[in-house]
Amino acid sequence: MQNILILATGGTIASDVTENGLAPELTAADIVSGSLHNLQGCHIDCRDILALDSSNIQPEEWQVIAREIAGSWQQYDGIVVTHGTDTMAYTASALSYMLRNIPIPVVLTGSQLPFVHPLTDATDNIRCAVAMALSGKPGVFLAFDRRVMLGCRGVKIKTSGFDAFESINYPAIARVTGAGLEVREHLLPQLKGKFKLQDGLETHVFLLKLTPGIDPAIFDLLIQAKYKGVLIEAFGAGGLHYVNRDLYSKLEALRQADIPVVVASQCLYEKSDLSKYEVGLRALEKGVISAHDMTSEAAFTKLMWVLGQTSGVENVRKWFETDLCHEITL
Amino acid sequence: MQNILILATGGTIASDVTENGLAPELTAADIVSGSLHNLQGCHIDCRDILALDSSNIQPEEWQVIAREIAGSWQQYDGIVVTHGTDTMAYTASALSYMLRNIPIPVVLTGSQLPFVHPLTDATDNIRCAVAMALSGKPGVFLAFDRRVMLGCRGVKIKTSGFDAFESINYPAIARVTGAGLEVREHLLPQLKGKFKLQDGLETHVFLLKLTPGIDPAIFDLLIQAKYKGVLIEAFGAGGLHYVNRDLYSKLEALRQADIPVVVASQCLYEKSDLSKYEVGLRALEKGVISAHDMTSEAAFTKLMWVLGQTSGVENVRKWFETDLCHEITL
Repeated sequence: MQNILILATGGTIASDVTENGLAPELTAADIVSGSLHNLQGCHIDCRDILALDSSNIQPEEWQVIAREIAGSWQQYDGIVVTHGTDTMAYTASALSYMLRNIPIPVVLTGSQLPFVHPLTDATDNIRCAVAMALSGKPGVFLAFDRRVMLGCRGVKIKTSGFDAFESINYPAIARVTGAGLEVREHLLPQLKGKFKLQDGLETHVFLLKLTPGIDPAIFDLLIQAKYKGVLIEAFGAGGLHYVNRDLYSKLEALRQADIPVVVASQCLYEKSDLSKYEVGLRALEKGVISAHDMTSEAAFTKLMWVLGQTSGVENVRKWFETDLCHEITL
Repeated sequence: MQNILILATGGTIASDVTENGLAPELTAADIVSGSLHNLQGCHIDCRDILALDSSNIQPEEWQVIAREIAGSWQQYDGIVVTHGTDTMAYTASALSYMLRNIPIPVVLTGSQLPFVHPLTDATDNIRCAVAMALSGKPGVFLAFDRRVMLGCRGVKIKTSGFDAFESINYPAIARVTGAGLEVREHLLPQLKGKFKLQDGLETHVFLLKLTPGIDPAIFDLLIQAKYKGVLIEAFGAGGLHYVNRDLYSKLEALRQADIPVVVASQCLYEKSDLSKYEVGLRALEKGVISAHDMTSEAAFTKLMWVLGQTSGVENVRKWFETDLCHEITL
């Protein structure tokens, strides 16, 4: 008999109609009793740890979830976390770092239609997540629409479609077929040591998505507001403008303030490559750190997490030049 | 004999290896002589108006391009603009508004590999763009990888793949087949009046992509810095957080400062819908404007453009509730 723990945090999956619009109302037990009864060879425990729309799930809630898992994993073969879809990719990425070397599967899932809706995708998704939780494969995963991906590679690309999540720049690691859950073993991350809860996070980190003509003074504002790190979503492979409005001199100011700057692409797919164009090379000269093929969610949460463990541009750089859980291809 | 004008602005298509990395070096005539010689029934004029990596193309450059087109279109059957790919979606969206009711095709194109590269996609792309320019269909378009899309619907989704652009939430309007360019007439925007160059743009507009736990004080900074409008890329269908860190009270502050706030989704596909969840309804109560299914690029440039014509939340709202060129589905 395998033991599974389901941690409910709210989200659409748990939502019902209220006078203020859809809001989380159902418990984990409600969802489990309606979707997982008579499941063979498996005992399921349920815990309601949060009841939030995922727009309200923030770093402190990631810590609540991570600590609950860290305190419980030894009693279970796998853990499923039900979660709203809107920020699930951020939570999944953050947990991937916070729960380093977790020896069991931790699987996030949710749904686009509430569990109470006749056409809900919740039943399929939670069953897929439980199957992954029963697989025994260590890591943090995201299960949705008959596929399982690494938590640090998932991105929500559709606001309402059932195929809401895509595994970006890395293949899905499992899919549901008529033969069951087909896990592609060679794509899984390997345990690199003993499990350790590392739940420190620096919340004062800024994501700046560039727009043409953006006023470089925004960087002065971020320095004044004492942000500890900046992730820039730059143009294409990693370009920033310098004609008329010189963003590069501001990168220099950030370096002098020892504020690490990570540069990712605003393109959804494929890697940023600062070494290719003059506009990227100029950024590298200013000491920025490349996010390579990381998702924006994975890069942002990694920056928060690294700054929760260390500080200073060069220390942060070392962490970004280390692949922790296949979040980056170096 | 049809007359086509090619306006070159730089970009990868015109780039060559320099000691500082790839940078724009080729002229429009270089590109045309190498890719379009012996083209039947068509006379081509070339003009080099800019020589910039598109990371350096900003609102002032959109004005240079728009004014060049406004001063030349009566002599031509169609105009092709070669442009770097990194910000092409922004330029194409901006031109869609600035060149309202342009009676001829204006087609942006570029390439992922420089024209001087043996495997360049420049030849295919420029030929596709010229074919669209010869079609006589009015509007601003983006031609790439054997497809033509509305300029206001294109997004660069890949940093290096040839299929770099996707037409978001609206079908491609033409594709290249063995039978030539197949234009899907029913998808084209209709002329709604006489052509008028409307090249006013407010550049002091900010794009804020939300991250979980973002400090609401960022809005105070934007108000202090006298930004004239804000586009928020919110979570999922349009959520913002209010637990612990209340973003909604800041929306109220923006309203009181008469700074229009447009809310889009950070999901690439499908529409934002603020009326669905409690977290969205709260935003609507604060007077935010929904971007519905617009791309982030189209919403941001529309906000710049609308604020170049008018000011005040309610005037901006009226423009966003008006579909100008199929940039929004209402």
